[in-house]
Amino acid sequence: MTFSREIRLKSRPQGQPSLDNFEIVSVKLPPPGSGQIQVRNRLMSVDPYMRGRLFAKNAINPQSRPFEIGAALTGTAMGEVMASNNPAFKVGDLVKSQYGWREAYNASANELTSVTPDGLPLEAYMAAAGPIGLTAYVGLMRAAAINPGNVVFVSAAAGAVGATACQIAKLQGCKVIASAGGPAKIRFLKEELGVDEAIDYKAIPDLTAALHHAAPDGIDVYFDNVGGNHLEAALEVLRPRGRIALCGLISGYADPDISSGPRNMIRMITKSLMMMGFEVFDHMDMAPAYHDALKGWHARGRFKWVHTFRDGLASAPEALFAVYRGENLGKMLVRL
Amino acid sequence: MTFSREIRLKSRPQGQPSLDNFEIVSVKLPPPGSGQIQVRNRLMSVDPYMRGRLFAKNAINPQSRPFEIGAALTGTAMGEVMASNNPAFKVGDLVKSQYGWREAYNASANELTSVTPDGLPLEAYMAAAGPIGLTAYVGLMRAAAINPGNVVFVSAAAGAVGATACQIAKLQGCKVIASAGGPAKIRFLKEELGVDEAIDYKAIPDLTAALHHAAPDGIDVYFDNVGGNHLEAALEVLRPRGRIALCGLISGYADPDISSGPRNMIRMITKSLMMMGFEVFDHMDMAPAYHDALKGWHARGRFKWVHTFRDGLASAPEALFAVYRGENLGKMLVRL
Repeated sequence: MTFSREIRLKSRPQGQPSLDNFEIVSVKLPPPGSGQIQVRNRLMSVDPYMRGRLFAKNAINPQSRPFEIGAALTGTAMGEVMASNNPAFKVGDLVKSQYGWREAYNASANELTSVTPDGLPLEAYMAAAGPIGLTAYVGLMRAAAINPGNVVFVSAAAGAVGATACQIAKLQGCKVIASAGGPAKIRFLKEELGVDEAIDYKAIPDLTAALHHAAPDGIDVYFDNVGGNHLEAALEVLRPRGRIALCGLISGYADPDISSGPRNMIRMITKSLMMMGFEVFDHMDMAPAYHDALKGWHARGRFKWVHTFRDGLASAPEALFAVYRGENLGKMLVRL
Repeated sequence: MTFSREIRLKSRPQGQPSLDNFEIVSVKLPPPGSGQIQVRNRLMSVDPYMRGRLFAKNAINPQSRPFEIGAALTGTAMGEVMASNNPAFKVGDLVKSQYGWREAYNASANELTSVTPDGLPLEAYMAAAGPIGLTAYVGLMRAAAINPGNVVFVSAAAGAVGATACQIAKLQGCKVIASAGGPAKIRFLKEELGVDEAIDYKAIPDLTAALHHAAPDGIDVYFDNVGGNHLEAALEVLRPRGRIALCGLISGYADPDISSGPRNMIRMITKSLMMMGFEVFDHMDMAPAYHDALKGWHARGRFKWVHTFRDGLASAPEALFAVYRGENLGKMLVRL
């Protein structure tokens, strides 16, 4: 008999989530049933949106339905097939699923996506080589339609999407201004990713002034992972006919009830700005072109794989808090 | 010796503007100088943005620079050439200028634009056949890219831009949902302009609910003349991949310091929405096509000219207040 440990939501947080809201439970895992596949997870993803799902009220979209109390949490995970009663999967295959937050599981074939490594690091398929990286690509290439020579501002630039966006924009010949919180991230952005300017928003009193200083002639494109005061600052500094790709609103995830829109929406009109929100799953047609580009950059040593790892299932709740404390560089992954 | 009366800003308003903030003064008008043209105004425009210019602090854009105390206000006006020392203009020509708020003036040629009537009512050239109408056309056809069958929501729909937008959208085969304040406007929108649904936002407690009710399957396009709660409601009711043309933010003109952006910007992402601000003067390339279309609609009796008139220069300040009290249907014009 196989056992699997899983992390369950024990209670809903009152205010800040704490470890007390979670419990780790060992459950028996029966052999896979007819047509089923048994998978042992190797990597699981910890994402900003998961925090909102800990709370009862939050139904901005299906992805943000509350986690159930007493049940294992869910999320993207990559694992290896251990046993299979389905001809489509064989032992040793790599698969992705939404069965994160647990060590092993049985699933039907339609719950699994095959991963066929093609020369990139395994963890890349959970980040830059998956929907996360494609999000950066779609936002820059389609929503904001960057051109070589554009000045591109990227917020939350040391995060999973942001670090990919900075690199793609640089590779496309843009000048990149990145914002992030804290000296370690600023150093990383400048020294590792090679951005042109990096703004430590935690160390400055006035983000708009800092952005003006970093881009004296204005910016052409804002890749928004944050919303809030970052969006307001970008609206001030964007050049006429500038473009905004709206990718995430971390400031809003934290507490949708108190989020407020930018007060200077009038700039949209006075500067003829364009703003486009997007969900990567509407743009999967771009995936092949992006993957080809990524392999090319990798082959020429032009792309940095950026991940932050935690080890062991028990570290997952703390890893989620760390994402909110802004401690990750690139994608936060838990190795199981 | 010719005299001209003009309206000057006597003092800046503290709170709501009142007639005490204006004075009407009679000034001597010398004969036109060398190269100059003397014009007597026939119609002058009273526009929402003028209210902001009464106040000292307000420099959102050049058009919103404060009016000077002790000087005549300015604004679009149409007049007739009375005397000319310039071969480009002859007596009887119709011209537009920014010399509104006065009965007559001398100007140089580069301050005047010729108006050549081509079969439309004279006042049309101050409204639907000028930049105001083109604003509606550009917003719908380019910024929002409407298609036949789209459900289009227009706010401030009984105003100068809004009434034109409603008609163009209907003529393009769209379903039109219009919002305005008060039963007279609702009646006008339904009976005169033939919109499909009209929402009296002053008579309902919940604009989002009313919009959902008017468009149970959602809207494809929002033509925004208002901002504020209208924009929030539209963000709720827009269908995935919907488009917003940002044309005006009346709620923001009134007091830019307290204006706040929509709290539900997250919808931009979850529904992959596109928002485009625009200034009509960036899109003058569309003017010929629009004017041709307008003449065609007029010839076939398909377009209603909508204006509200006041008579005499002295009525202009009150006309401006009336625009803010929402008493105008279509463009507010003062006949001089």
